[in-house]
Amino acid sequence: MKKPAVILLSGGLDSTTCAAIADDAGYEMHGITINYGQRHDYELEASKLVAKQFKFKSHAIIELDLASFGGSSLVSDKIEIPKNRDLNTAKEIPSTYVPARNTVFLSVALAKAETLNAFDIFIGVNAIDYSGYPDCRPKFISKFEQLMNLATKDAVQNVGTYKIHTPLIKLTKSEIIEEGIELGVNYEITSSCYSPNKYGSPCGCCDACNLRLKGFHDAGLVDPLEYR
Amino acid sequence: MKKPAVILLSGGLDSTTCAAIADDAGYEMHGITINYGQRHDYELEASKLVAKQFKFKSHAIIELDLASFGGSSLVSDKIEIPKNRDLNTAKEIPSTYVPARNTVFLSVALAKAETLNAFDIFIGVNAIDYSGYPDCRPKFISKFEQLMNLATKDAVQNVGTYKIHTPLIKLTKSEIIEEGIELGVNYEITSSCYSPNKYGSPCGCCDACNLRLKGFHDAGLVDPLEYR
Repeated sequence: MKKPAVILLSGGLDSTTCAAIADDAGYEMHGITINYGQRHDYELEASKLVAKQFKFKSHAIIELDLASFGGSSLVSDKIEIPKNRDLNTAKEIPSTYVPARNTVFLSVALAKAETLNAFDIFIGVNAIDYSGYPDCRPKFISKFEQLMNLATKDAVQNVGTYKIHTPLIKLTKSEIIEEGIELGVNYEITSSCYSPNKYGSPCGCCDACNLRLKGFHDAGLVDPLEYR
Repeated sequence: MKKPAVILLSGGLDSTTCAAIADDAGYEMHGITINYGQRHDYELEASKLVAKQFKFKSHAIIELDLASFGGSSLVSDKIEIPKNRDLNTAKEIPSTYVPARNTVFLSVALAKAETLNAFDIFIGVNAIDYSGYPDCRPKFISKFEQLMNLATKDAVQNVGTYKIHTPLIKLTKSEIIEEGIELGVNYEITSSCYSPNKYGSPCGCCDACNLRLKGFHDAGLVDPLEYR
């Protein structure tokens, strides 16, 4: 029997590759996607296609309105999404940072995991080709793992030990793409752009598009998405 | 100018007393109440009355469907809520435990806090007269506080240090009630019962009612609620 795992799935390049890795490792996959009021809610559609491709056992899209709190250009059209940042020199954490997003995501994943008696949670965070978000760093992940093992009935009663799997955390974007291609990921159904147009067509100049395009370029591949 | 604080408010006896303590300490209060699909959603109404009494600067009721995950008698009418447990001898964690609830609640409170530039979060957890939930224990809270200070932009940029205030954690239920009475809490508007009837009338025999009734009794007071 396959071991159940909870996969945090945004429908982007990283979480999709992460799902492919969990699939390859033989887990029974249960996806969690959070509709937190992101501008780029086109990714919710992408997440459904990915869950279907990888034959997820279950996939829940959870509504959680973080947009009402504001504080990020990803949830408020009053703050502009930065374009054409030079990611080699940029030092500040950009306005696309969403307060406590990965803390919220992992806590919802934990709730799901405990109800499934699953102890494995996959998240596609990356600390190499990324925007400098604090909640993508290995020390954040490691602290959350410690927390899970104090927070829950199953952990306290020694039914199991929670593990957060971050298979991408130390890979470059091109290495992620190469790994995904090998595992049969169809990147055409993924969506990374922070401000796609209403058809889902990516802008090609936000951080997410830039990292993605550079990744395909460095891997000697062509991104199958059509940029506008 | 008052310092802003986020108050996790269920509308029960503990979180209301916790709010009264934050108010007395001079904070500008921003309430977060989570509608997670609890059977006893009468408490949402109680939370509104409490927020009004203590003149909260803001109060958000956030929808987050943990009930769809199941796994607790508080969110599923397929699991019975335990009645008349002897809390002096009961050792197991009861079915009213909701997987990862306080992890989820604190993560949403953190998201709100960071958008407000607030570094103080109040939660009315209690580890004395309680049902043995793992996420009410001091070591869980202390780990979450460490997590907050790794997870967020404001912490990483040294804008401030997050603190979780747990003023009730080491008080007995009667001490909590005595403190609340002194601070002007009107316990008539609070709701603790896990299975109130449709009018909000408490059952008098679930853990929450038993702890509450014992608290009033030990304090030499009469609970103003009308039990059915």
